[in-house]
Amino acid sequence: MNPFCENNHDHTLILRRLGIDTSREAVIFMRKDCHVCRSEGFEALTRLKVCNGEKSILATLLVIHSDLLKPDEASLSESAWITLGVKEGERVQISHAEPLESFGLVRSKIYGNKLSEEAFRTILKDVVQRKYSDVHISSFLTACSDDRLDQDEMIGLTKAMVSVGERLIWEKDLIVDKHCVGGLPGNRTTMLVVPIIAAFGLTIPKTSSRAITSPAGTADTMETVAPVDLELKAMRKVVEQEGGCIVWGGAMRLSPADDMLIRVERALNVDSEGQLLASILSKKASAGSTHVVIDIPLGPTAKLRTSEAARVLGQHLETVGAAIGLKVKVVITDGKEPIGRGIGPSLEARDVLSVLQNEADAPSDLRERGLVLAGEVLELAEAVAKGQGKHTAEAILVDGRAWKKFQAICQSQGGMREPKKARFMHPVESPRTGKVVAMDNRRIARVAKLAGAPKAQAAGMDLHIHLNQAIEKGEALFTLHAETQGELQYALSYLRSLPEIISIEGGA
Amino acid sequence: MNPFCENNHDHTLILRRLGIDTSREAVIFMRKDCHVCRSEGFEALTRLKVCNGEKSILATLLVIHSDLLKPDEASLSESAWITLGVKEGERVQISHAEPLESFGLVRSKIYGNKLSEEAFRTILKDVVQRKYSDVHISSFLTACSDDRLDQDEMIGLTKAMVSVGERLIWEKDLIVDKHCVGGLPGNRTTMLVVPIIAAFGLTIPKTSSRAITSPAGTADTMETVAPVDLELKAMRKVVEQEGGCIVWGGAMRLSPADDMLIRVERALNVDSEGQLLASILSKKASAGSTHVVIDIPLGPTAKLRTSEAARVLGQHLETVGAAIGLKVKVVITDGKEPIGRGIGPSLEARDVLSVLQNEADAPSDLRERGLVLAGEVLELAEAVAKGQGKHTAEAILVDGRAWKKFQAICQSQGGMREPKKARFMHPVESPRTGKVVAMDNRRIARVAKLAGAPKAQAAGMDLHIHLNQAIEKGEALFTLHAETQGELQYALSYLRSLPEIISIEGGA
Repeated sequence: MNPFCENNHDHTLILRRLGIDTSREAVIFMRKDCHVCRSEGFEALTRLKVCNGEKSILATLLVIHSDLLKPDEASLSESAWITLGVKEGERVQISHAEPLESFGLVRSKIYGNKLSEEAFRTILKDVVQRKYSDVHISSFLTACSDDRLDQDEMIGLTKAMVSVGERLIWEKDLIVDKHCVGGLPGNRTTMLVVPIIAAFGLTIPKTSSRAITSPAGTADTMETVAPVDLELKAMRKVVEQEGGCIVWGGAMRLSPADDMLIRVERALNVDSEGQLLASILSKKASAGSTHVVIDIPLGPTAKLRTSEAARVLGQHLETVGAAIGLKVKVVITDGKEPIGRGIGPSLEARDVLSVLQNEADAPSDLRERGLVLAGEVLELAEAVAKGQGKHTAEAILVDGRAWKKFQAICQSQGGMREPKKARFMHPVESPRTGKVVAMDNRRIARVAKLAGAPKAQAAGMDLHIHLNQAIEKGEALFTLHAETQGELQYALSYLRSLPEIISIEGGA
Repeated sequence: MNPFCENNHDHTLILRRLGIDTSREAVIFMRKDCHVCRSEGFEALTRLKVCNGEKSILATLLVIHSDLLKPDEASLSESAWITLGVKEGERVQISHAEPLESFGLVRSKIYGNKLSEEAFRTILKDVVQRKYSDVHISSFLTACSDDRLDQDEMIGLTKAMVSVGERLIWEKDLIVDKHCVGGLPGNRTTMLVVPIIAAFGLTIPKTSSRAITSPAGTADTMETVAPVDLELKAMRKVVEQEGGCIVWGGAMRLSPADDMLIRVERALNVDSEGQLLASILSKKASAGSTHVVIDIPLGPTAKLRTSEAARVLGQHLETVGAAIGLKVKVVITDGKEPIGRGIGPSLEARDVLSVLQNEADAPSDLRERGLVLAGEVLELAEAVAKGQGKHTAEAILVDGRAWKKFQAICQSQGGMREPKKARFMHPVESPRTGKVVAMDNRRIARVAKLAGAPKAQAAGMDLHIHLNQAIEKGEALFTLHAETQGELQYALSYLRSLPEIISIEGGA
């Protein structure tokens, strides 16, 4: 079948584990003067095929100019070592990678042609099998970004994403879900909606993502109070027991192509509409959902900045959703400023807990938004009459059923815990007296990230003000939280290099 | 000024050279459990700033899980080691990379906005300073590919490419040049045009590229007969002495941004119009040219496939050229089949030498094309009357002046040598009797590359037929040349997996 390995029985090298982690890209290390490099003229970045018996992977070559390896040795990056299932001292065969035929389809897209569902499936199969280097994935993402995909292609991409992964089958006909397109710091409504909906009695198996370009994803925030890294089987048990869960989707290989792509998207700090849409809907379809409410925050520094763009995305989500069998309702919400007070996993979890526990000073904006979305889910599922959704949701929150359900879900996911608190805190004061007239979501997110979020769970920013609020010169606008002094300094350095991320006008 | 290094005097590690070549992308290797990774939470693929006194670079982190390094040690990839100018045992400071602000401009391009010359300059400065990882470069290339750049942007990109590199100043007012957009195997006319034009008395300081996606670039082919890796000063001396040269442009840092981009373009196997145009014209402008003839081969498997596309590219080249002060004449030529017989550096050089030496069986198509282009250069420069160009060029070839000049140029570049011959040859026979009706340039190029070209100079393919020629079943269509048995096998395997790359029709 494949002539590229079998003809080269002399092109073998002995594996030695150097323990180098290159993230997911498979890398092979070989000496410049090994017989394989010499006879084949391989040089750094050549793509090679590495065979271990029946198994094979494609890997990018990095060349060793020293005695790190002996001339008859090679090494593999950690992920490649595991994927290929090799042991120290085993021999692998090395040969030219066969041409990556599916990249011809990406090239065709670059040249402006349309791609079919079949074409996307061909590409994504190779992506999932790690045949694409990060450079190839970057090009695919860029070629499919922005308005380069039309509606048929979005449908094709979404279906292809679903088809290359696993798909959950539930015993119920009605499976609800909610999602937020993101871009708004602190918008942690999932952790309110899931317990309300599950307490009502519907099934909501929510898989969330970790942060891509933001200081916290729902999975990061949830992780501060309970494990989210559940295997499929464990997640299914939680849902059967409690009616809902809030887990990390990545652990589950639902839409694995999306996980491979997101890693490079994160390096690029780029989200595109087609990818966004395929990412959201493929996860929902793979999770077996039938009815999905999608929150699109709209504001000058949110992900969606004009009502036209939000409307178009909303329409695409509903149409593409219908094409793959999902009933989608889009809710466009106010995205002018962060939601709640905390930004960063632990701080956001603290806000969520105070809403669930009906504390008097719980952030009312977060509470209101959670209730609106939970209400929309109930109405979309036709579980309550039109107009009764929010009211029903509020009753479940107020009488403590939501809080009880949340605790039960946390227990079922592996046990509830307290969010960590940061070691270092630093208040940042208002430079003048006046009124808050604008807040830059993007830069606020960046400051929280520089302070260490989401990796450092307790890091981030605690906002003390909201839009239109009056403030005195010298009062704290927000407090930075960090787990290391270094990260606190990065965040402060960045703040000093910027125009104001929170604009204060007027006042004496 | 820059707060990212100075605040972290404790974040230092001791350098140990592991000798790992990652091509041009700068990589830093650190132990997972070193105090810097632990305190900062760095993980594989994080972009870091590495400071050595005043000098600093950005590098991508790969994480070591073994004893390859001690906990207080780090290593750098070979190119990073050299760029940063460090020594074994020195301490470097490591910190978060400041945000790559210029990538915001790439993002803006992805979202469909226009980029100004200033924006391109900002991006390319960072590219040349190696602040972009390969993943970033891949995205930039893809975002600017195909029809994503309008004419103003092409001008901006070209000017920016020129401005971030060096520019040659000559003492003459008239500096001529020629270029081929490529895509046609064997089209090695530069090695004919340069000696003819220089023998005529004009100045033609030709810098050529190595192969990007083809089995040989002019620099690769010229290298089989003379050194091409000349420094700027040496190249200038050749031109002053002989009126012309044929050297590798990459050694000269003319348009260094282009060299950084081409490396990733090669990995992607993608050429785009805007990049192509900026690449060509920036090299020409940087080399100080004033009049440039550009050859665009047109054919069903050439780089340009429709006369409309060739016309549009030609018009862009002339217009963008004019905008940056170059007089450009585009010549659209027949690109239906390879030129000459050999494909691969040595084989192509052999064809060129036979034309220069007026051998009776020299490939007439290569000769004809060289004369046409040399004639166009003479006419564009107004060195001869309209219509007299080709005739003048032919006289210089026929009477041996061109051959004499070519030898003198080779001598001046460091000495003339014989092209190598391949160790392994394998004829491939026609499967039937008939007439050659089509030749697939792309697949012919791929077979020559799998046989080892351009890295193995003598490797490639020697064609024994041309379009419309009659052939008997069992006669050789072409002969594969390779320097290793393995490469010969790859080429043969690929051939077997394909439909015919040379189509034969009719016959009995």
